[in-house]
Amino acid sequence: MIQKVAIVGGTHGNELLGVYLVKKWQEFPELLQRDSLKCVTLISNPAAVAIKQRYVDRDLNRCFAANDLADEDLNSYEDRRAKEIAIRLGPKDHPLADVILDLHTTTSNMGISLLPSSKHPFNLRLAAYLHSLYPDIRICFGLQHGQDAPMLRSLSPLGYTIEVGPIAQGVLNADLFQRTEQLVHEILNYVDAMNQGNLPPVPSMVTVYQAIANVDYPRNSSGELQGMVHPQLQFKDYEPLPPGQPMFLSFTGEEIFYSGETLVYPVFINEAAYYEKQIAIVLTEKQRVDLGKG
Amino acid sequence: MIQKVAIVGGTHGNELLGVYLVKKWQEFPELLQRDSLKCVTLISNPAAVAIKQRYVDRDLNRCFAANDLADEDLNSYEDRRAKEIAIRLGPKDHPLADVILDLHTTTSNMGISLLPSSKHPFNLRLAAYLHSLYPDIRICFGLQHGQDAPMLRSLSPLGYTIEVGPIAQGVLNADLFQRTEQLVHEILNYVDAMNQGNLPPVPSMVTVYQAIANVDYPRNSSGELQGMVHPQLQFKDYEPLPPGQPMFLSFTGEEIFYSGETLVYPVFINEAAYYEKQIAIVLTEKQRVDLGKG
Repeated sequence: MIQKVAIVGGTHGNELLGVYLVKKWQEFPELLQRDSLKCVTLISNPAAVAIKQRYVDRDLNRCFAANDLADEDLNSYEDRRAKEIAIRLGPKDHPLADVILDLHTTTSNMGISLLPSSKHPFNLRLAAYLHSLYPDIRICFGLQHGQDAPMLRSLSPLGYTIEVGPIAQGVLNADLFQRTEQLVHEILNYVDAMNQGNLPPVPSMVTVYQAIANVDYPRNSSGELQGMVHPQLQFKDYEPLPPGQPMFLSFTGEEIFYSGETLVYPVFINEAAYYEKQIAIVLTEKQRVDLGKG
Repeated sequence: MIQKVAIVGGTHGNELLGVYLVKKWQEFPELLQRDSLKCVTLISNPAAVAIKQRYVDRDLNRCFAANDLADEDLNSYEDRRAKEIAIRLGPKDHPLADVILDLHTTTSNMGISLLPSSKHPFNLRLAAYLHSLYPDIRICFGLQHGQDAPMLRSLSPLGYTIEVGPIAQGVLNADLFQRTEQLVHEILNYVDAMNQGNLPPVPSMVTVYQAIANVDYPRNSSGELQGMVHPQLQFKDYEPLPPGQPMFLSFTGEEIFYSGETLVYPVFINEAAYYEKQIAIVLTEKQRVDLGKG
């Protein structure tokens, strides 16, 4: 029985879609009402939202490692905020919020991507159900998933980071706003139906993308950028990248190729916020997962 | 005779294309060598580039009004920087840089747009020539053009702000990087040929877009956003917008229509940096300009 669903926006202050969806639901809470569950809404990083920046001191969505939450000496704005949020939605071993949905945007062409908090069957079945409704949504496991991860979503094993793109930082996109809103409503409908023993039919198999490695931009020995994502790869998130295909183009025009030995499916291609994390591309493997019987 | 061309990047620190093009040319200055002219390159807002933000204190590209340059009491970082740049490239009435090219990006779908510093025949003829080489470039006069404008380009009557998009803030786009690089080379080739009396043939007519009004987002009485650019208008820069067509979609789903009486051509649609300037869309009129004989 899932009693409480938390819907979070503004974990990054320049990702406006989640901020304005949460504000809408705070103004019209009746939109989130379902018979068998309670929704809580949260703007998680209000100071970053106010200055329209990703963060004030450090990335809030990397402040939720259990060790960091327990470390009283960490007291940047975001570290303090993470501790407040953990009290409100956590703790990790027995969260007050049964399901957490954390709404993000990306400059990558990832459409609507669900990044599950764990491999819990609930997350996989719900994702498979949503994929049956909206065949263009994708399910992607990060390098860090499960409750050891430092992301906000890790406060509960159930739920997702929902990444929506491509959207530039600091702008709203009406089409993706409406599609994300609809998706969240379908999640609430599913949970409500499940609580009432009326689980809708769920496909028995689902395709997921499992992150296996990060690739940085070409840089010189001082760390200065020397190139860009190759035009043939830009906006090609989730498309197959075979060995030997171009990944980067240097500023002086040289092509740099994917030197791995296996077929991969890149995601987070040219995400603005990941330049500082030394990530140009996240490589994933495509997998089929058997969900068994629901 | 045009002796000095200034190529400027990083007027906004989160618009990376100009920053990395200028850095490339600073590393390989021979690429800019032409027989009859000298190029100078400049990263105009290095402090903003270092923090990857549009500006430190205020928008540098609004600091070049003659009154502000003369006002010793204005001493924000960008006001001080504008005065330094005016000494290096100006003054407005007799600039050291004959031609100024200031490289920007936009989150709007404006392709490569030339925003001329004035209606000087040089700017129009060169723009017409470039349009004959690259039919997808556009020529757009802002509401503020001429040397009364507060933009960096206003230090000289000759030259352009070059806007390139759509590009999210904080990212590079390899295709647009290469196309912008090629365009700047063609500008230098044209000026060099003109200096040597070998002006290439120039079309006698050119299409320009003249800004006539700004339109803000729907907001409530506290100034808070109440809606977004309509999905039918998003990314439709330079496409005709007839009276009665939808412009915005409120967060609660109501459509808001263009209520003007004339056909317009919107630009800067949903530009991230213009939310704070209360500009959602810049309306332009399409005009044909007779260039006469070269």
